[in-house]
Amino acid sequence: MLLARVIGSVVATQKHAKFQGAKLLVVQPCVAKDGVLTESGNTVVAVDSVGAGLGTYVLFTQGSSARMTPMTKDSPTDAVIVGIVDSVEMGAATVEMPQ
Amino acid sequence: MLLARVIGSVVATQKHAKFQGAKLLVVQPCVAKDGVLTESGNTVVAVDSVGAGLGTYVLFTQGSSARMTPMTKDSPTDAVIVGIVDSVEMGAATVEMPQ
Amino acid sequence: MLLARVIGSVVATQKHAKFQGAKLLVVQPCVAKDGVLTESGNTVVAVDSVGAGLGTYVLFTQGSSARMTPMTKDSPTDAVIVGIVDSVEMGAATVEMPQ
Amino acid sequence: MLLARVIGSVVATQKHAKFQGAKLLVVQPCVAKDGVLTESGNTVVAVDSVGAGLGTYVLFTQGSSARMTPMTKDSPTDAVIVGIVDSVEMGAATVEMPQ
Amino acid sequence: MLLARVIGSVVATQKHAKFQGAKLLVVQPCVAKDGVLTESGNTVVAVDSVGAGLGTYVLFTQGSSARMTPMTKDSPTDAVIVGIVDSVEMGAATVEMPQ
Repeated sequence: MLLARVIGSVVATQKHAKFQGAKLLVVQPCVAKDGVLTESGNTVVAVDSVGAGLGTYVLFTQGSSARMTPMTKDSPTDAVIVGIVDSVEMGAATVEMPQ
Repeated sequence: MLLARVIGSVVATQKHAKFQGAKLLVVQPCVAKDGVLTESGNTVVAVDSVGAGLGTYVLFTQGSSARMTPMTKDSPTDAVIVGIVDSVEMGAATVEMPQ
Repeated sequence: MLLARVIGSVVATQKHAKFQGAKLLVVQPCVAKDGVLTESGNTVVAVDSVGAGLGTYVLFTQGSSARMTPMTKDSPTDAVIVGIVDSVEMGAATVEMPQ
Repeated sequence: MLLARVIGSVVATQKHAKFQGAKLLVVQPCVAKDGVLTESGNTVVAVDSVGAGLGTYVLFTQGSSARMTPMTKDSPTDAVIVGIVDSVEMGAATVEMPQ
Repeated sequence: MLLARVIGSVVATQKHAKFQGAKLLVVQPCVAKDGVLTESGNTVVAVDSVGAGLGTYVLFTQGSSARMTPMTKDSPTDAVIVGIVDSVEMGAATVEMPQ
């Protein structure tokens, strides 16, 4: 999984039937290093399965494993948000996420 | 999924039987950042499952999940277009796509 | 799928039984941009399923979908050539491939 | 698999049911080169299946194969720690890992 | 598949049961270009299924297809060596590998 921050959402009227009702969020991956989180890598659009909102820090899963939630089962989904991050502990440093 | 813009199409007479009749579109991935969409990353050839045209902004899915549409089932496809993007909302900024 | 040019082939006497008789081609991925094809990214070794030759421009599929051809079924293959490219149309520009 | 060092852990109260009780570790991938291990690439969050701790060098698996442990079966997991590294032998050089 | 050179091996006492008895080799990916092989990309740890040794040039497979050998079936493996490379032919140039 990757750490990421939710930075937006996608509106798409015309889409695969399995996406009807799904919340499609734009996430910016982050890396954890030297006690801080830093944005790194290209943005991804992920289906929300945990009620994440704009600005939330999340964990998202990619590939076939993204189909392992009730909301994404058998759908052409390759990215799904699977957790909302409270904090990341890196040795002495603990980064608390804004909720 | 990734955001992308359709920039072309591929003509291939000799191809796997499962691709007969499939529209093979060249898509340029985009990232959403600071309220705008920017092209980033290498182009990909994706099967169209939603009626996308040249210049359309789309969502496409990669990997095994690309086989989860009626058009790509059991085919050697690793990329499929699954939605046409109307707009991307990034906090205060909303990017409307040309249709 | 990715666009690529066939630039070579691999000879391997000792290999997994499922590769016996398979043609293993070295392909150089290309990106389509500004009306031309440009080589980009690292070379990959792909199983040929369409009769491609040296210098041919092809489409190849990666990941689990690479096992969705009769030649690669149940084999430890993660890349397969699935089409020979005649041309790539990019708006006003059409790139005809050498056959 | 990739070599990595465990550099932290993630606390997430709200998460997919399959992650309840799972230890979510932040790992920093490493490359083995010229007789030493060097950090390289973005951090990943992996489920621990072998009892790894902070500072441990591990092997982790990505993609669908990450679901092939009892702890991650059928869960939306795309990264799992599958081994604790004692040493890496590179020709004349042997790198012993701190345990 | 990718071309690679075996540059080392990993010793891991504590590991997933499916890895017991498996030889875990460190491979350095290579690209074939302009008639030569050049190292490129990060090292990967792959299960050996063909009897490769230190210094051997090999082909390795990644992702779910890495589970398609008797040695890796149902195991949390995402990389497996599937062939030993004798030579790579690139048009006029043939690169013979040290065996």
